[in-house]
Amino acid sequence: MASKLKVGIVGGAGYTGGETIRLLLNHPDVTLTFVHSRSNAGNPLHEVHPDLLGDTDLTFSDHIAPGADVIFLCLGHGESKKFLQENPLEAKAKVIDLSQDFRLGETSGARSFVYGLPELNKSAIQKADNIANPGCFATAIQVGLLPLAKAGLLKEVYATGITGSTGAGQKLQDTTHFTWRANNISAYKTLTHQHLKEIGRSVQQLQPGFGASINFVPWRGDFTRGIFVSSIIAADRSLEELRALYREFYAQHPFTIVSDETIDLKQVVNTNKCLLSLEKEGDKLVVHTAIDNLLKGASGQAVQNMNLMCGLEETAGLKLKSIVF
Amino acid sequence: MASKLKVGIVGGAGYTGGETIRLLLNHPDVTLTFVHSRSNAGNPLHEVHPDLLGDTDLTFSDHIAPGADVIFLCLGHGESKKFLQENPLEAKAKVIDLSQDFRLGETSGARSFVYGLPELNKSAIQKADNIANPGCFATAIQVGLLPLAKAGLLKEVYATGITGSTGAGQKLQDTTHFTWRANNISAYKTLTHQHLKEIGRSVQQLQPGFGASINFVPWRGDFTRGIFVSSIIAADRSLEELRALYREFYAQHPFTIVSDETIDLKQVVNTNKCLLSLEKEGDKLVVHTAIDNLLKGASGQAVQNMNLMCGLEETAGLKLKSIVF
Amino acid sequence: MASKLKVGIVGGAGYTGGETIRLLLNHPDVTLTFVHSRSNAGNPLHEVHPDLLGDTDLTFSDHIAPGADVIFLCLGHGESKKFLQENPLEAKAKVIDLSQDFRLGETSGARSFVYGLPELNKSAIQKADNIANPGCFATAIQVGLLPLAKAGLLKEVYATGITGSTGAGQKLQDTTHFTWRANNISAYKTLTHQHLKEIGRSVQQLQPGFGASINFVPWRGDFTRGIFVSSIIAADRSLEELRALYREFYAQHPFTIVSDETIDLKQVVNTNKCLLSLEKEGDKLVVHTAIDNLLKGASGQAVQNMNLMCGLEETAGLKLKSIVF
Amino acid sequence: MASKLKVGIVGGAGYTGGETIRLLLNHPDVTLTFVHSRSNAGNPLHEVHPDLLGDTDLTFSDHIAPGADVIFLCLGHGESKKFLQENPLEAKAKVIDLSQDFRLGETSGARSFVYGLPELNKSAIQKADNIANPGCFATAIQVGLLPLAKAGLLKEVYATGITGSTGAGQKLQDTTHFTWRANNISAYKTLTHQHLKEIGRSVQQLQPGFGASINFVPWRGDFTRGIFVSSIIAADRSLEELRALYREFYAQHPFTIVSDETIDLKQVVNTNKCLLSLEKEGDKLVVHTAIDNLLKGASGQAVQNMNLMCGLEETAGLKLKSIVF
Repeated sequence: MASKLKVGIVGGAGYTGGETIRLLLNHPDVTLTFVHSRSNAGNPLHEVHPDLLGDTDLTFSDHIAPGADVIFLCLGHGESKKFLQENPLEAKAKVIDLSQDFRLGETSGARSFVYGLPELNKSAIQKADNIANPGCFATAIQVGLLPLAKAGLLKEVYATGITGSTGAGQKLQDTTHFTWRANNISAYKTLTHQHLKEIGRSVQQLQPGFGASINFVPWRGDFTRGIFVSSIIAADRSLEELRALYREFYAQHPFTIVSDETIDLKQVVNTNKCLLSLEKEGDKLVVHTAIDNLLKGASGQAVQNMNLMCGLEETAGLKLKSIVF
Repeated sequence: MASKLKVGIVGGAGYTGGETIRLLLNHPDVTLTFVHSRSNAGNPLHEVHPDLLGDTDLTFSDHIAPGADVIFLCLGHGESKKFLQENPLEAKAKVIDLSQDFRLGETSGARSFVYGLPELNKSAIQKADNIANPGCFATAIQVGLLPLAKAGLLKEVYATGITGSTGAGQKLQDTTHFTWRANNISAYKTLTHQHLKEIGRSVQQLQPGFGASINFVPWRGDFTRGIFVSSIIAADRSLEELRALYREFYAQHPFTIVSDETIDLKQVVNTNKCLLSLEKEGDKLVVHTAIDNLLKGASGQAVQNMNLMCGLEETAGLKLKSIVF
Repeated sequence: MASKLKVGIVGGAGYTGGETIRLLLNHPDVTLTFVHSRSNAGNPLHEVHPDLLGDTDLTFSDHIAPGADVIFLCLGHGESKKFLQENPLEAKAKVIDLSQDFRLGETSGARSFVYGLPELNKSAIQKADNIANPGCFATAIQVGLLPLAKAGLLKEVYATGITGSTGAGQKLQDTTHFTWRANNISAYKTLTHQHLKEIGRSVQQLQPGFGASINFVPWRGDFTRGIFVSSIIAADRSLEELRALYREFYAQHPFTIVSDETIDLKQVVNTNKCLLSLEKEGDKLVVHTAIDNLLKGASGQAVQNMNLMCGLEETAGLKLKSIVF
Repeated sequence: MASKLKVGIVGGAGYTGGETIRLLLNHPDVTLTFVHSRSNAGNPLHEVHPDLLGDTDLTFSDHIAPGADVIFLCLGHGESKKFLQENPLEAKAKVIDLSQDFRLGETSGARSFVYGLPELNKSAIQKADNIANPGCFATAIQVGLLPLAKAGLLKEVYATGITGSTGAGQKLQDTTHFTWRANNISAYKTLTHQHLKEIGRSVQQLQPGFGASINFVPWRGDFTRGIFVSSIIAADRSLEELRALYREFYAQHPFTIVSDETIDLKQVVNTNKCLLSLEKEGDKLVVHTAIDNLLKGASGQAVQNMNLMCGLEETAGLKLKSIVF
């Protein structure tokens, strides 16, 4: 058997860092060689991620161990760019960045980044040395639109999406106080969510000249994990034609599945899957999509990208038991 | 002081029946003279509604006590029509029907029904003898649209709404099993919700000739009470003009409040309020509305209608402590 | 009609302050004359308590308006004592303190405090000028034990209780982060909860010489409101005798009800009720009690105490609609 | 590589059947050869377990495919005994029964059953042909008591436990209606839970002559997965001695971990782990334990037993990513 990949994580104390650790600890083809966290250096991982008690004796480190094949950057927005400037990594280390710092074509020194949505860019990812991992809402919305864009059929989009509290990160804030958020729903960043930029780029990659609006209203949900999006789009084709279009588009993508039945969020929570379902009434198509925001929307997709970049099986380490209930 | 109204409830064992009981027991101008339920006749109310233990010694009755000034019908859809056919009520008894049986202009014998949305029909309600109480989603959506329709500005609507599990009634079913619904989100009746008909009627009452679509995607939420709706509509006017339009429209409506701030669902849960907030980006207006589906969306609005019909203060018995947390 | 009581609140920006506002705004015999909050002075109440939008135009004040008949202190533990030292109140103003500062017999200047558990001290409360309002867990546990103590039957107690997140206050902290607390259960202050002291005092008031342990394990629950306690106690008497004992003890207490049926927490949430149910197996009695921690466990009981102190009906302003679902 | 075990499931449409499927589909040493369900025969697994969409094309079968090495019985209580009577299995097939039918020494024909709690009976399990898999509460409670019993130190136990809704199975019933259960807590089977019998047997196996009561109050929790138990027991030894006792007892048990820190339920949800923490105050020891009721409390422990019976690594197929948030 080939030797295992040496993999490190920078920013291992946050939610996406923790999920990346969880996935890599159980990944059959990987050795987790370091987990970087300045503030937690020297402490065992399970002090920050107490569910890992009994799973590993690794401790957080304050330096980047040399020799890594792949380094995941699980840092806040703006911090990845800064980290790469201040910490020159070995040239051979592939980088997968989970922030939004490089999703719109930005570079860092000699490193240029491929937008890591396998459903859009799989072959480019397979050849890439640096990946800008997509945003969570961006993933859920795009997967609902790309087949239409590929066919040149995409028109103005009216989308509403709901996200779990983990989407807001682990920092304490009023909108993640349990007392406020339990049993509550609210809108935020109405029509102005930052992910609209990366969605726009992807759509135009497939349907050049697309100029209509993507109107998106994000909601805060009263659950911890998951994103559910319903997008309304005018479409001439029949539901059968549209379903066929989507199925063909996703035929080679193991995590993205077009369901004949209605879908619900918990079908995908704690997995790397993206489920879609299509409905049509009159001239309006509605596409529903569901992902786990921390997995297909962040750390799971990052590992999927690692698998693709490194020639591993795309699903390696990602056959996860759903929470289901 | 004037003598109290004599009021009865038919179908007192369900959710809306229970909420109507709770409101009427504490209403200062009302005596609850009977609560009808065939299957529970003879049993104390608190056997079916255990939160009422200690609040009342009333029992369910299997007949309609004579002399009622107002009778609330809290029956399933289709059952109100049948009940009125089979149980001729005294002519003097005003009827408030919470089902959808009479919302589209249907009559029952000599009884013709006014659509009981005070924000649309207050003066007609004040003169009415029979009220068809609006649907819960219908209330939340309409309140977001009526000021535009009144001004002749309403265009195609793209709305998503989420509802608590009480919207599905107390019957056991797969989609209200706790194990399935907890932490889950799903869409249902996409673009085909039955409330679209009553919404269409109301909109055309204010903006005759309105012919565009009201595209509505309802979601099942993982909470018990409340409805939150976000509607996207193209609008030329400025946000300030639109807010002024809404404020003016609702100036005389004590429960319907246009907020300058963003709103959240729990501001209204366990109250009869409807909160609105407006946001605008480019040419798109987004109207967010929040109600408690069982109160402003059902029993609270029914009591509000009773107050209006009977010359009581509109808010009598409806100054409710919100759950807030 | 007699003129209304003039009532003020100190510390109106927290959870118990907010609940006290909500109750007093709707109380028929009271005028809320000021709500003190240093940090929010000048701002409308609904900026801090957004559910009050449309209910009141009151603003927070940074001084104590003279002439108050009753002042509620809704301050943190330790702050009430300090506040009374630094802000000499008019002698005629009755004080109801919701902190734990005066529950064990402490005084402040000429003010000595009656422990405000009506089920224990109703006649003393009726004559009192100053009330130390009981703790939330203390209320729930005591109500389950007092009838036994009165009869001299209380023995060692093994109790487990679970509390909603509002019990931890509005300060942001790790254990009230939604992401952590949703769907989670944990124990804290095992056998060392601070309320054990006031419970011990009350028990010995009724059963002098009681020296056995009250072993109490508190749990954090994944809900916002409510306390549920199950206490196991050895008891010789039959279940019927014990139920009779409890019913007799609570016969004159309108909010405390012994149920023949099993009880659940939501029977009391958003009300001032305390429900009890008793079960027996072998020589072990189990007493289950349920309250809303912010109402019967704090602000509701404070208003109940005001009613008693001021000669109002005990239930005035406290006939609240439960959330029930 | 050795050939894979052939494994089948009887009763694959319920909760424990579904979890067993999820585990076996990803188990590296196993081929799932049939999933029996009379009512669903012919339908794909994902029709009943929609989270499996895209994971497998297996269909339910109405017969027992020959050649199975291990058969899991995921049937209701009473049904396993009946099934074995009516469906003679091949003698070579090992049986793991998840019902309570064989936990107290019952036999079925030539099949006698070992009680499958690895922490109690590991070496017997390794030699067993038939396993009676423990109950969920039974597992959580026993793991908290066994080290004391082994040392002859166990005295009367006062335990309270809370369970997720999956513990009640998938049948629709009032206590699993979302509207009722959300944000609710209630007690049931107070001091009479059926698992007390198997707990008593295990305790006496280690501490013969133990005759004190195990007083247990089970609560229904407002979450789907997990059990948390706090047990109070008088104990003379110091906390350090007791912790050492527990650590030594569990040293060879990979899933059962004594934490130095306080524990919370979500550390174990969606894993096969059992976490314990010990606290002491005066002469009272409190043991907190947490498991996932469907995994360590059912299907996960069943697979663990299979691993032990079949000479596989004890943790094979059971290194599961926790839900954590």
